[in-house]
Amino acid sequence: MKRILEAYRAEIEGGLARALTGDAPLRPLLRYHVGLEDEQGAPTTATGKLLRPSLVLFVAEQLGASPKATLPAAIGLELIHGFSLIHDDIQDRDRRRRGRPAVWTICGIEQAINAGDLMHALAIAAALESSPDAAGCLIRATEEMIEGQSYDLEFEHRTASPDEYLAMIDRKTGALLRCAFELGGIAAGVNGPVRSALVDLGHAVGRAFQIKDDVLGIWGADDVLGKATGSDIRRRKMTLPIVLLFERIEGADAARLEHLYRDAEDVEIGPTEVGWVVEKLDGLDVQSTCEALIQRHLDEAAERLESLPFPDDGRSRMHELIDYLARREQ
Amino acid sequence: MKRILEAYRAEIEGGLARALTGDAPLRPLLRYHVGLEDEQGAPTTATGKLLRPSLVLFVAEQLGASPKATLPAAIGLELIHGFSLIHDDIQDRDRRRRGRPAVWTICGIEQAINAGDLMHALAIAAALESSPDAAGCLIRATEEMIEGQSYDLEFEHRTASPDEYLAMIDRKTGALLRCAFELGGIAAGVNGPVRSALVDLGHAVGRAFQIKDDVLGIWGADDVLGKATGSDIRRRKMTLPIVLLFERIEGADAARLEHLYRDAEDVEIGPTEVGWVVEKLDGLDVQSTCEALIQRHLDEAAERLESLPFPDDGRSRMHELIDYLARREQ
Repeated sequence: MKRILEAYRAEIEGGLARALTGDAPLRPLLRYHVGLEDEQGAPTTATGKLLRPSLVLFVAEQLGASPKATLPAAIGLELIHGFSLIHDDIQDRDRRRRGRPAVWTICGIEQAINAGDLMHALAIAAALESSPDAAGCLIRATEEMIEGQSYDLEFEHRTASPDEYLAMIDRKTGALLRCAFELGGIAAGVNGPVRSALVDLGHAVGRAFQIKDDVLGIWGADDVLGKATGSDIRRRKMTLPIVLLFERIEGADAARLEHLYRDAEDVEIGPTEVGWVVEKLDGLDVQSTCEALIQRHLDEAAERLESLPFPDDGRSRMHELIDYLARREQ
Repeated sequence: MKRILEAYRAEIEGGLARALTGDAPLRPLLRYHVGLEDEQGAPTTATGKLLRPSLVLFVAEQLGASPKATLPAAIGLELIHGFSLIHDDIQDRDRRRRGRPAVWTICGIEQAINAGDLMHALAIAAALESSPDAAGCLIRATEEMIEGQSYDLEFEHRTASPDEYLAMIDRKTGALLRCAFELGGIAAGVNGPVRSALVDLGHAVGRAFQIKDDVLGIWGADDVLGKATGSDIRRRKMTLPIVLLFERIEGADAARLEHLYRDAEDVEIGPTEVGWVVEKLDGLDVQSTCEALIQRHLDEAAERLESLPFPDDGRSRMHELIDYLARREQ
């Protein structure tokens, strides 16, 4: 059902292993973080979906680029994603990442800052192996992603409007997904309308992907996601459902919500209160608004896809992936 | 007495301002950090020595490269240096940087991680404007620098030997200084022996520069350096003098030193104990060993310099700078 995510896995894992090889400082920690190794350095397969590099390689292939010359850029993108997660987990004091201990819980915050910094440098070095254009594209996306992360942290201290929130995720998570599609285009040497259509497709897929993440962060099942249902509420994470709830809630409920999200920042929201927030979300139809938004972006993605000069088989595989993103439970 | 550090100042400050322009997130913080603005955003001139970018432009000019095409790489190098200081101050919990509040004390650790990350991305983007080779050289130096920082943090938990310490500073501070000379050579398109001689010159200058820093961190005057004399002792910083002291000290003194540096990591070393450490350093001739090492590297630098195809005036300006580095009080 998601051939794009399976087709390139071995190639990407090989590329990651090559980029992070050796016993130089921090390397074992980086291999642990991307899921190539466990804490003891034994090989493991916890590399996650590898969505971004798979997209790079898939798009490049559809447009006739050489997979070999494209791989370093795809690896660079995955490493930028990885670096951002290392620093993100420090910033949010998240102790778990994909069901495993976060890097900073293993080596401390100080070394984890270094580990992220090194992964950032190795990422751009990898992209530069593909081409200067690929490196430039990846750096611009990285800048946007960091700006988005900066907004995200800011929104912990004030309530963002839904529009502000969407502008934030367009940067924080959207930038790297747009970059995935664009890197595929760069590898194939496309410019003009095809390149724009790729970026637009990336934008739509990115929106759908992130909003789905937000929905799963509140209504996702424990065991599948590797984190507890409602965990985003417990940690007062300002995701789209919460931003919409703040916009819709009124009266005494609004005051209670405000109190919950603004006070006692160092104490997690307890199970009773989490239950209350979910009840309010359901009562105000927030989930269905989110699902409708996801669908709108998926439709938009499908439309953009039609305009791209992909072979029929490629187009159908991309549709498959879009469907999968809409229905996934993790 | 240090014409190299004066000749390019206006050009470099202009380049930094262009690279960090605008109101996008974190930009004002980055301009503050490099010393273009104060905390309120008013223009200021606290950009420091600008040693690294000055060296890039100087070397490029001596070898006949276009200053205009070289500037972005020089700016990139200064921004990598700046990014490393932002993260370094977080890791060391240093509240001051060049006599001003460190970035993290202004915006918090979380946003300061982002600020460093953004400056890292902008740095490579700048170098890429010069050439892919320049970007590649800068990225490799960045990787080495981060590895050095990783060793430095490790040495807070165990006593490094003098050799291990020197290997660490060759990465942590040496890498960017070697890179300064190499970027100048890359701009001029030199390869082979000239490029190697540039790297060797950078290595010697880097060693002399860092060991001088270590000496100033213990015996430097308060007002000039913007931090108190003995501040590296107070903070238990493992610099070359301390590493040498650990190697030389014996008996009860060794036990007392061990106790001072290993115990009560969260308490600063008090003035009496700082005085005792300085007394031991002086009694065991540590300062003169450091000064001799600085001189050896300065001699080596002078020797490498002779082998470079610089015009006479350029060679004499470089000698001047080497002299200045050896004698500076800050």
